[in-house]
Amino acid sequence: MKKQLLSLAVLVILVVCLGLSQTPAGPKHHVVFQLSEESGPAWGSLILHVNNTMKALSEDGGSEVEVVFYGPGLLMLKKTNTVFAERLEQLSKNGVKLIACRNAMKNRDLKTEDLFPFAGQADSGIAEMVRKQEAGWAYIH
Amino acid sequence: MKKQLLSLAVLVILVVCLGLSQTPAGPKHHVVFQLSEESGPAWGSLILHVNNTMKALSEDGGSEVEVVFYGPGLLMLKKTNTVFAERLEQLSKNGVKLIACRNAMKNRDLKTEDLFPFAGQADSGIAEMVRKQEAGWAYIH
Amino acid sequence: MKKQLLSLAVLVILVVCLGLSQTPAGPKHHVVFQLSEESGPAWGSLILHVNNTMKALSEDGGSEVEVVFYGPGLLMLKKTNTVFAERLEQLSKNGVKLIACRNAMKNRDLKTEDLFPFAGQADSGIAEMVRKQEAGWAYIH
Repeated sequence: MKKQLLSLAVLVILVVCLGLSQTPAGPKHHVVFQLSEESGPAWGSLILHVNNTMKALSEDGGSEVEVVFYGPGLLMLKKTNTVFAERLEQLSKNGVKLIACRNAMKNRDLKTEDLFPFAGQADSGIAEMVRKQEAGWAYIH
Repeated sequence: MKKQLLSLAVLVILVVCLGLSQTPAGPKHHVVFQLSEESGPAWGSLILHVNNTMKALSEDGGSEVEVVFYGPGLLMLKKTNTVFAERLEQLSKNGVKLIACRNAMKNRDLKTEDLFPFAGQADSGIAEMVRKQEAGWAYIH
Repeated sequence: MKKQLLSLAVLVILVVCLGLSQTPAGPKHHVVFQLSEESGPAWGSLILHVNNTMKALSEDGGSEVEVVFYGPGLLMLKKTNTVFAERLEQLSKNGVKLIACRNAMKNRDLKTEDLFPFAGQADSGIAEMVRKQEAGWAYIH
């Protein structure tokens, strides 16, 4: 009986140890991008970089991607941004989460209805990127 | 006796495994910010971002924050920088570590007495940020 | 016999657990730098920062360093870049891996023979930095 309990304990430990060394279910890669630049080359590059990254990682287990928009970068998510509307919506349809920073929204007096309907929100864009890194996501700026 | 030793070994392993999956004591979140930009919008944004981040994370276990100043960003820590003196001192009083890169100090011929008295120092600003990331800190630039 | 098997199992678990908490063999520190800026101060700073970082970390277990060149930063690796040729080659001789992004090469119609012979390549510069971070490397931009 005691031996059985001990064997059980060892099994539990083994499972715990294996669990610690494994990645969570779902895509193999997790990447959070920062977009904090004002209108300019950084906006077009973001679309290109996210697409290229997802394509490269699709051949290697797939990726979960989130972009955090804050500071002057938040303006890329304004629904009046017709230049990028289609490309951003396509990213969203491809599963990329586009997250607006609520602090940046307050600073610029922007409401939810001023942003693209496919945009999500976080209390603080930087806190969001901190949490993602803590959860093992790679960070790209 | 042998069984007791074995049980002890299992206990030790269990503690080690649990230890590996736990965060250290203190605040839940740890963030190192990079400030390498010259005088301009980045300086004001830094203050705003650090404060917003700490506020957001205060509702979720608290945060330990460090800012590493290097390259042209070091100049933000010069005690002649009266525009930001008060805001930087307030960050320091709130527990934020403000770290000057000694390589940047040498390159610009700045001595300890040229910087705010509340500024700390690291041999290399980048090496400092590497060590923080290795210790599990999130990195924000 | 059963006890011996059990002891063996415990030993295996112990080794696995210890393995999880140890860094891989080789240098203690691993750093991937991003160079995505066009020609300007960022190019000279990169050389300075890599050298300073390696020097600082050499006194603390040593470092393995890689620089990923993408976007307009790729042009730093063009072999017509005589201003930086010598300094980049010296980095390479010091063991720093200089990696060109193939997406950036395609976008700019650059072939392998257009780049310095000591430059390596990755399918996607960002995917490369993601993989490095996943492998525990610190990321610096």
